[in-house]
Amino acid sequence: MQFINGGVCAAKGFKANGIHCGIRKNRTKRDLTLIVSEKKAAAAGVYTTNLVKGAPNVVTKENISDGYASAAICNSGNANTCNANGIEVAKEMCSLTAAALGIDAKDVIVASTGVIGQPLDITPIKNGIPELVNGLSYDGSSAAEGIMTTDTKPKEVAVSFTIGGKECKIGGIAKGSGMIHPNMATMLVFITTDVAITPEMLQKALSADIKTTFNMVSVDGDTSTNDMVTVMANGMAENEIITAEGEAYGTFCKALNTVNVQLCKMIAGDGEGATKLLECAVSGAENEAIAKTVAKSVICSSLTKAAMFGADANWGRVLCAIGYSGANVDVTKIDVSFKSSAGEIVVCQNGAGVDFSEKIAKEILLKEEITILVNLNSGTASALAWGCDLTYDYVKINGDYRT
Amino acid sequence: MQFINGGVCAAKGFKANGIHCGIRKNRTKRDLTLIVSEKKAAAAGVYTTNLVKGAPNVVTKENISDGYASAAICNSGNANTCNANGIEVAKEMCSLTAAALGIDAKDVIVASTGVIGQPLDITPIKNGIPELVNGLSYDGSSAAEGIMTTDTKPKEVAVSFTIGGKECKIGGIAKGSGMIHPNMATMLVFITTDVAITPEMLQKALSADIKTTFNMVSVDGDTSTNDMVTVMANGMAENEIITAEGEAYGTFCKALNTVNVQLCKMIAGDGEGATKLLECAVSGAENEAIAKTVAKSVICSSLTKAAMFGADANWGRVLCAIGYSGANVDVTKIDVSFKSSAGEIVVCQNGAGVDFSEKIAKEILLKEEITILVNLNSGTASALAWGCDLTYDYVKINGDYRT
Repeated sequence: MQFINGGVCAAKGFKANGIHCGIRKNRTKRDLTLIVSEKKAAAAGVYTTNLVKGAPNVVTKENISDGYASAAICNSGNANTCNANGIEVAKEMCSLTAAALGIDAKDVIVASTGVIGQPLDITPIKNGIPELVNGLSYDGSSAAEGIMTTDTKPKEVAVSFTIGGKECKIGGIAKGSGMIHPNMATMLVFITTDVAITPEMLQKALSADIKTTFNMVSVDGDTSTNDMVTVMANGMAENEIITAEGEAYGTFCKALNTVNVQLCKMIAGDGEGATKLLECAVSGAENEAIAKTVAKSVICSSLTKAAMFGADANWGRVLCAIGYSGANVDVTKIDVSFKSSAGEIVVCQNGAGVDFSEKIAKEILLKEEITILVNLNSGTASALAWGCDLTYDYVKINGDYRT
Repeated sequence: MQFINGGVCAAKGFKANGIHCGIRKNRTKRDLTLIVSEKKAAAAGVYTTNLVKGAPNVVTKENISDGYASAAICNSGNANTCNANGIEVAKEMCSLTAAALGIDAKDVIVASTGVIGQPLDITPIKNGIPELVNGLSYDGSSAAEGIMTTDTKPKEVAVSFTIGGKECKIGGIAKGSGMIHPNMATMLVFITTDVAITPEMLQKALSADIKTTFNMVSVDGDTSTNDMVTVMANGMAENEIITAEGEAYGTFCKALNTVNVQLCKMIAGDGEGATKLLECAVSGAENEAIAKTVAKSVICSSLTKAAMFGADANWGRVLCAIGYSGANVDVTKIDVSFKSSAGEIVVCQNGAGVDFSEKIAKEILLKEEITILVNLNSGTASALAWGCDLTYDYVKINGDYRT
């Protein structure tokens, strides 16, 4: 398996486009994205567990309940959530897309992201669809831009690998930034692949993978109303169709996981206001559930996040976050280290501080990618979680988001 | 019942003092507080549920396990947590205090607050105790200062009331500010009263009360390792001793609750970097558990907190926080209003937005005390929770706390 250029158009038979249609006021910001498969694709999705659900989530879940989809449309600038006519508007987005592409409206995945509770005007979408469809191409970069909100950079990744001698690809785009705290669900991610796989096995692979990828990311502890990850697999790689577990399924899952982990890191590292990507790597846990609970608690701690912003080796806050995580751990066995490209330093052993050089710790923590290593010394299970630092800019961005 | 001046010295027979002994570098900051009862007092306590526990918490719990205490000593500037010799140092604080006062070391409540994981040097405490004891007086204001960390103002409150014709008083001091997210436990609070009550009934009253007071406060979602609330009741009001539930117990509980609610608001309003006190008042819930879960989720939402800082009526974030709270609510029935001394405005009805004046909403949200009113329209239970806005200064204070 190797990383390749591109995103949702890396796999065979997928075209995409992203344009500015007028939902966002800033004319330089794209706000409408379309992804189309030349062949009807097996489709799978996972959705937010928030009881307040975006209308597009409801419509998408219904549309792909038969296991197939041909296109995905997504607008930014408005979440189409908590609006009386939300379902109607989301369905209209599907109908308009379907009509322009000559497909069935039930084969369209629809998503929206942006402000909650302001009615979404269908007019700019309706007017924009001809341009959107005319501009479809095998370059997916504008599609990655069209789903951005406060993201500072587009997020796309792709890998290539082989199944039964056939070259296969998986690629994806994501939007993250704020209101990121997936819980048995995720943020906005579109994945495409040319692998031939049944809808059942595709859903199984996706549902399993998000538990260690998107569900282990947190920017601000707020689980969005519009979280959604979808995969379309159009089979154009012409591998023997995956219908059960086995070597081919394993290879596919590994490739899917590679794409998703990269997107997770991109989302966390571009969290609202973030200057740093934080990874918490927990090892030595009694079981995986404990490792995950501990990793996520550390990544979610406002105090730890603020300390990382300040490049302050305040490991007591890491211990504190482990202690209140709810996981049953022996705190007297915990070791903590900080690691980055500048090196690694042990700051806590057996739950108590050790002498360490503040100067070296500072050098390590001034880097843009920091790993907080936690060894619970109580078993062999491990987990990773990703987050970002808490900065002035997070407050600035969210103190007045709507204007 | 009426509010009166003072704090821990409002009740009969309590003296206190707070001095700078040298734990904190800034010589203008008091860092050692002593509270002494002339008569041995019934004592009760509640403690953090964090598995990482401050050494003083462990020692205090053991010391008041017989139901009685005569004095409380507390230092700021160092939490005495995650240190190999923590228990030893906490016990020495008790011994030195006991020796100076001529009491038993087992009758001393000990607490510490400040940085985690740096050994606490007993020397400045040892050297400071003579001055601390000599300066004991019936003015408790220096005691309220001696327990402060990043608090910007001392927090004290007292009420007077009668039981069986006898005038009784309860007063308390608190330190809050950061790492505030009590969970079946609380932050640092010392309460004193001259009411005569058995240790069992005192503990019962305290344990019951914190569920709707300190456990409903959050500044930053981080549950401290050193949370502790203690009450000393010395009986000097000479009421007939409270030994069971009944009218007198009810009066006592009501007074205790009044003191605690005031301290909660002071703690939340003076949260690290806070410019505003936020109250979430949930009504119309099916049961109290749902009301509490919803209220706390709203108060804890970083996005809601940042919106309140920006005086932005972004009610979608309130709905979002209700939706992911874990409480089983019908989101299509939810009404939301914002309220302050400038008025009240409805922003959401039946889970969807209503037309409202952004100008009036702004005026309401520019005030320093905001109430977010949530009516679930599904029952008669209600709950209150307190928090604060998320500001640049929270990040500044916590980006480099140790230096």
